[in-house]
Amino acid sequence: MLKELSPKAEELQHKLIRFMEAYIYPNERIVEEQLNAAGNRWTIPPIIEELKEKARAEGLWNLFLDNPAYGPGLSNYDYAHLCEIMGRSLIAPEIFNCNAPDTGNMEVLVKYGTAEQKERWLEPLLQGEIRSCFSMTEPDVASSDATNIQGSIVRDGDEYIINAKKWWTSGAMDPRCEIAIVMGKTNPDAPKHQQQSMILVPFDTPGVEVKRHLPVFGYDHAPHGHAEVHYTDVRVPVSNMLLGEGRGFEIAQGRLGPGRIHHCMRAIGAAERALELMCSRAEERYAFGSSLAEKGVIRETIAESRIEIEQARLLTLHAAHAIDTVGAKAARKEIAMIKIAAPRVSLNVLDRAIQVFGGAGVSEDFPLAAHWVNARTLRLADGPDQVHLRDIGRLELKEQQK
Amino acid sequence: MLKELSPKAEELQHKLIRFMEAYIYPNERIVEEQLNAAGNRWTIPPIIEELKEKARAEGLWNLFLDNPAYGPGLSNYDYAHLCEIMGRSLIAPEIFNCNAPDTGNMEVLVKYGTAEQKERWLEPLLQGEIRSCFSMTEPDVASSDATNIQGSIVRDGDEYIINAKKWWTSGAMDPRCEIAIVMGKTNPDAPKHQQQSMILVPFDTPGVEVKRHLPVFGYDHAPHGHAEVHYTDVRVPVSNMLLGEGRGFEIAQGRLGPGRIHHCMRAIGAAERALELMCSRAEERYAFGSSLAEKGVIRETIAESRIEIEQARLLTLHAAHAIDTVGAKAARKEIAMIKIAAPRVSLNVLDRAIQVFGGAGVSEDFPLAAHWVNARTLRLADGPDQVHLRDIGRLELKEQQK
Amino acid sequence: MLKELSPKAEELQHKLIRFMEAYIYPNERIVEEQLNAAGNRWTIPPIIEELKEKARAEGLWNLFLDNPAYGPGLSNYDYAHLCEIMGRSLIAPEIFNCNAPDTGNMEVLVKYGTAEQKERWLEPLLQGEIRSCFSMTEPDVASSDATNIQGSIVRDGDEYIINAKKWWTSGAMDPRCEIAIVMGKTNPDAPKHQQQSMILVPFDTPGVEVKRHLPVFGYDHAPHGHAEVHYTDVRVPVSNMLLGEGRGFEIAQGRLGPGRIHHCMRAIGAAERALELMCSRAEERYAFGSSLAEKGVIRETIAESRIEIEQARLLTLHAAHAIDTVGAKAARKEIAMIKIAAPRVSLNVLDRAIQVFGGAGVSEDFPLAAHWVNARTLRLADGPDQVHLRDIGRLELKEQQK
Amino acid sequence: MLKELSPKAEELQHKLIRFMEAYIYPNERIVEEQLNAAGNRWTIPPIIEELKEKARAEGLWNLFLDNPAYGPGLSNYDYAHLCEIMGRSLIAPEIFNCNAPDTGNMEVLVKYGTAEQKERWLEPLLQGEIRSCFSMTEPDVASSDATNIQGSIVRDGDEYIINAKKWWTSGAMDPRCEIAIVMGKTNPDAPKHQQQSMILVPFDTPGVEVKRHLPVFGYDHAPHGHAEVHYTDVRVPVSNMLLGEGRGFEIAQGRLGPGRIHHCMRAIGAAERALELMCSRAEERYAFGSSLAEKGVIRETIAESRIEIEQARLLTLHAAHAIDTVGAKAARKEIAMIKIAAPRVSLNVLDRAIQVFGGAGVSEDFPLAAHWVNARTLRLADGPDQVHLRDIGRLELKEQQK
Repeated sequence: MLKELSPKAEELQHKLIRFMEAYIYPNERIVEEQLNAAGNRWTIPPIIEELKEKARAEGLWNLFLDNPAYGPGLSNYDYAHLCEIMGRSLIAPEIFNCNAPDTGNMEVLVKYGTAEQKERWLEPLLQGEIRSCFSMTEPDVASSDATNIQGSIVRDGDEYIINAKKWWTSGAMDPRCEIAIVMGKTNPDAPKHQQQSMILVPFDTPGVEVKRHLPVFGYDHAPHGHAEVHYTDVRVPVSNMLLGEGRGFEIAQGRLGPGRIHHCMRAIGAAERALELMCSRAEERYAFGSSLAEKGVIRETIAESRIEIEQARLLTLHAAHAIDTVGAKAARKEIAMIKIAAPRVSLNVLDRAIQVFGGAGVSEDFPLAAHWVNARTLRLADGPDQVHLRDIGRLELKEQQK
Repeated sequence: MLKELSPKAEELQHKLIRFMEAYIYPNERIVEEQLNAAGNRWTIPPIIEELKEKARAEGLWNLFLDNPAYGPGLSNYDYAHLCEIMGRSLIAPEIFNCNAPDTGNMEVLVKYGTAEQKERWLEPLLQGEIRSCFSMTEPDVASSDATNIQGSIVRDGDEYIINAKKWWTSGAMDPRCEIAIVMGKTNPDAPKHQQQSMILVPFDTPGVEVKRHLPVFGYDHAPHGHAEVHYTDVRVPVSNMLLGEGRGFEIAQGRLGPGRIHHCMRAIGAAERALELMCSRAEERYAFGSSLAEKGVIRETIAESRIEIEQARLLTLHAAHAIDTVGAKAARKEIAMIKIAAPRVSLNVLDRAIQVFGGAGVSEDFPLAAHWVNARTLRLADGPDQVHLRDIGRLELKEQQK
Repeated sequence: MLKELSPKAEELQHKLIRFMEAYIYPNERIVEEQLNAAGNRWTIPPIIEELKEKARAEGLWNLFLDNPAYGPGLSNYDYAHLCEIMGRSLIAPEIFNCNAPDTGNMEVLVKYGTAEQKERWLEPLLQGEIRSCFSMTEPDVASSDATNIQGSIVRDGDEYIINAKKWWTSGAMDPRCEIAIVMGKTNPDAPKHQQQSMILVPFDTPGVEVKRHLPVFGYDHAPHGHAEVHYTDVRVPVSNMLLGEGRGFEIAQGRLGPGRIHHCMRAIGAAERALELMCSRAEERYAFGSSLAEKGVIRETIAESRIEIEQARLLTLHAAHAIDTVGAKAARKEIAMIKIAAPRVSLNVLDRAIQVFGGAGVSEDFPLAAHWVNARTLRLADGPDQVHLRDIGRLELKEQQK
Repeated sequence: MLKELSPKAEELQHKLIRFMEAYIYPNERIVEEQLNAAGNRWTIPPIIEELKEKARAEGLWNLFLDNPAYGPGLSNYDYAHLCEIMGRSLIAPEIFNCNAPDTGNMEVLVKYGTAEQKERWLEPLLQGEIRSCFSMTEPDVASSDATNIQGSIVRDGDEYIINAKKWWTSGAMDPRCEIAIVMGKTNPDAPKHQQQSMILVPFDTPGVEVKRHLPVFGYDHAPHGHAEVHYTDVRVPVSNMLLGEGRGFEIAQGRLGPGRIHHCMRAIGAAERALELMCSRAEERYAFGSSLAEKGVIRETIAESRIEIEQARLLTLHAAHAIDTVGAKAARKEIAMIKIAAPRVSLNVLDRAIQVFGGAGVSEDFPLAAHWVNARTLRLADGPDQVHLRDIGRLELKEQQK
């Protein structure tokens, strides 16, 4: 390895691997069974809360925060290794209180929250007692250009009045969801990047309406779920404003750096698991006179997957290290690059694994199809590929001119 | 166009396009709403049967059969054009009684059925009164190599006893499904390609058990649905045998030729619709100073899609024409080629459209995600890409040696 | 075949195939040997003129002109089949007087030349007695946008004075080159697309200087060759103007339609030959326990090549037929599409063949490397891919809005 | 950076960058001019020897050897950074006495040479006084499977008699070439991997015949050059045997590890230079209303290139570090992976740069075309991609079974 893990991270890594084998993989189907058995899939499977307890007891909790006040204080480089392992299972991140969008929301509160905001919302999130969501994207505009966001946040005395039609508010279907961070315009006449603000909206405030659930390629992603949420004349105290009016973009930038690393490492974890499954399936299955593992075509498929995974992992670790050393802002090209590279690799490897599995690959008997859908969505979430490629191109041209 | 449509086909084409616009597209959501409203999604939405009546009244019925005894008797070349149009909507094929696997099953009965078999099963299928399924793939073996199929069909006096564990039996969840064609070994000691037979199994025969439903990338594909079906000591009269013992492969070959054309044309229809949606979305949405349609990157994405679609369509028409003129057997390289090319193009175009749509693309608000899943499955159904590529390579090498 | 060849074309096709086998393939190396033996590679290998005589005697001459006044008067669809065959060998097109840029120049003269221009230049070109070149691209501007062309053509009494710095003037190195068609601005103040004109410049006119030879990926393309040509105060009579001042773009459009078909069909011919070579090499060579032809990986490589070739050929024939039936202008999307598809496929297949051949593939022992370079250049010649994709995207968006 | 350079390497890196700017880039064309002026291109351009003197004086000499007895003793990780910089120019490696195949031959002599062999051949190679070549590949067999090698080395008293027909003997055209390492069978009856040996053959030994020069995609690669070399009854003393009879594979393995790192880093250097050129060209050229640098399509092209380069570089550094820490044998999967990844990336970036440059890209006015050809050859040299992918797949399957 080009750079060693810290001893603390290495220990956590071993613990995490054991935990995954002992408690996560064997319970993936149990989660699904409990969801189905409940009659209503927007309910928390008891196994989830049990496993959270276990994980917390082992110190596998809130590992994503590099601030030592809130956990082990791992570097992004260190955490990336752990995050990849969690990414191998779709049920894992929440067990360790390391799932999006709660992680991003907690980071925002840690960095920009007032003492009061922290006490009220950060604390229960850190405890895993409540869940949160993030409302930015809007159905009526191309939200890939965040300056298009139309939601309005208007001050009225000691309150802000929020009117906004949002969708892809992930986590909004979770019965434990108690708080939303909402982005909208407070200053429509300010320069483009100073018009938007972010504000805390308790989810039980009158006027907050979960309009409908949004499936993703047929998946409901229960009990988490994505929703269209309408905010109609929602009133919150002015103390709910984050950082200050017009600073929404600033928060968005700070929020996304580590968050993208997490998404990307999880995507690589999913790819790694797919490769593992692909290899074992290839050993087991026979067709046309030999096991699939003996066929040149399958070996190439495995080799291409390994080559792609290694490169994407190295690039992601490189970006994590850049955040650790020069900060998310200076590392924005590196971060944009992994946002392109990691989902792509993950999709390729998952697709190849599905192909090796045949019908089993598109079913729910293996986690391949569900992981594929997550990785596909990642090419859109936090900005579509096209926006990141544009940025990378622009930054590269600028650097080359020096 | 390199080759004109027959006047009959051209007239049907116009009629079909109008029907799609008047009755199919506007009812896509209605089908979904009726399925959801029913409480049980394995139920037939009334709108389906209404539209079937309408389609039949207009002569848009059973167009897939080239035998004039059963419909307009269109060539494969002619039908390909109609099939593409039907493929633009996932609800369309059934409305015209042109949906898989019923079409394949009807073809088998037309070609290989006895008078008695035709009367009992073909007739109600042609009327759209019942549905059928096809049980070949098995979970325990690599079914891409059909000689691996383990299901057993043993003669016992005037009956055959069937024992088999099948999955991906499409249509088995449909409440109207009354008949299955099951593949299994009657002659385990015969040469490899003469061991298997196909037999008709009424779906209410004791021992037939729909073990579980199989979702595809999270979709249930209701009310049609795919299932794991177990056949345990199922007894059927010997007259249910198709064509004769040991002739399963022969039937499979005959069944697949036109069937693959249909799948491929539908896949191209889906791609064409995706391109249409992509263009209109690109015109509507604005980001970073211009409409998406004005951006070079989006124009390339549209251009690449058009180039791919045109080529795949021409190749598919070419294969259809080959079946018409030299027969499915001599055209097997052409058929294998479209089985590779068409799903691939469809996936590419759908993927690009999803990307242009952003979050809306992975949701159910547009048919992109659902079509993508169908096209992805097509890279596995009727043999995975790898098997077809192997065959094409082998045939090419052989032809080059002449 | 979706559309039959005319009987005349079919006869020519058989003749051409026999001619290729009897005289072209066996003489490919002779041409090279004669060039090397001559001491100066900018000399005409005697074998070329001998073969031209033979081809002409067999009626395999000037087949590209659809005007029956100048040859068999084949449709573009018919000629496409013949052109593909010629494209299998880099020495072939000239033997049949069907090589670029002479074909394009002859077409221009046929369509837009005055009786005098025809007599003076078209006649000897049709006889294959002289060669010509085409000077449009300039080193100092992005010539992909033809409105950037800076060359100046200024009227002075009965003469035009030409000043221009051109490069990629193909054929300019040929000792038989006697005439250039030069593009430049006569009307710098006219609307953008009416500023440029095309004019005939006898190559021995004072002020015409072949500045230097331009190799392509190391190839000199002797005896044809590409050159940088400077035109300094070159004076020609006003009667040398083609069609009229400001009509350069109009001529360029008319010139390019069929010309692109030719390039593309030749590219497909090169791919077809590469596939043929790949198959025979795969049969001959053994590694790791079997012939290459028995390896799954090689079979996939062959299969992918066949699938790509078939599609690109169909698309090119489709475009040729469109030119025949609706004209080059209405078929411009089809023409742009093959300009993208055909070179790409040719490059892919040639690259795969090179890989199967190993070191022999990059050498001159087989025509693969030389063909690859030609196909690569085709992605730039007559406008880079990016320009065509932009146009296709724009046209598609426009059509979709109807 | 995930891992720092050693201070020694960092200092050399700065020196090397300055040297490249001061002496290498400005002299690339001079080399070509001197070659052309010489009348015979198989002659050493005086500038080469001048620059070698300068490089040596600055300590930029023999940097590739990790053995401190022969130079600065850099790790493979350190050297990789320097090698990448050298790879930016095709004339550079020799200037620093770091060019293939001399580097590989020197490594073999350092590791396996006797004191006498070292004195006679290693010493002058280290001084840059003579050049060497390596004869392994044979035209008559698929040499990708090295067990196919047919060359014979038969002991006769105190001598070995060598009979072999070799090609792609790089460096054999160099007038300074004095020694060849030849691979052939000494023990045809031994187990497959113990049949071959490597032996030193002074190039002026009777029976050594340089049969012909082999161009690569039209390039002669003068004054270095590749050749077909026939060895007919060539007699050398038994003391010329390397390591011992039957140990040819062992030497080949040891030789290739670091050698592949070098090739790959140079390929990445070429890609980096191409990206640099692409960016500056994009800034300079205008078409269709803006500079190319402002176009989204070009920005994507730049972004994709940057993403690919970063990943391939990290993978190559990772492999270099693996050789440093676990040895070439244990790192063989890592080495095979970069052998696939680096040439591919280099080809992609060079191809995109060529496209941005238009006609200039395929000419000799910029180093793009020549670098492309080198990178393309790298997909064949030291084993074609297919062989490495097979190995990676096999190793991955094995590791996954643990």
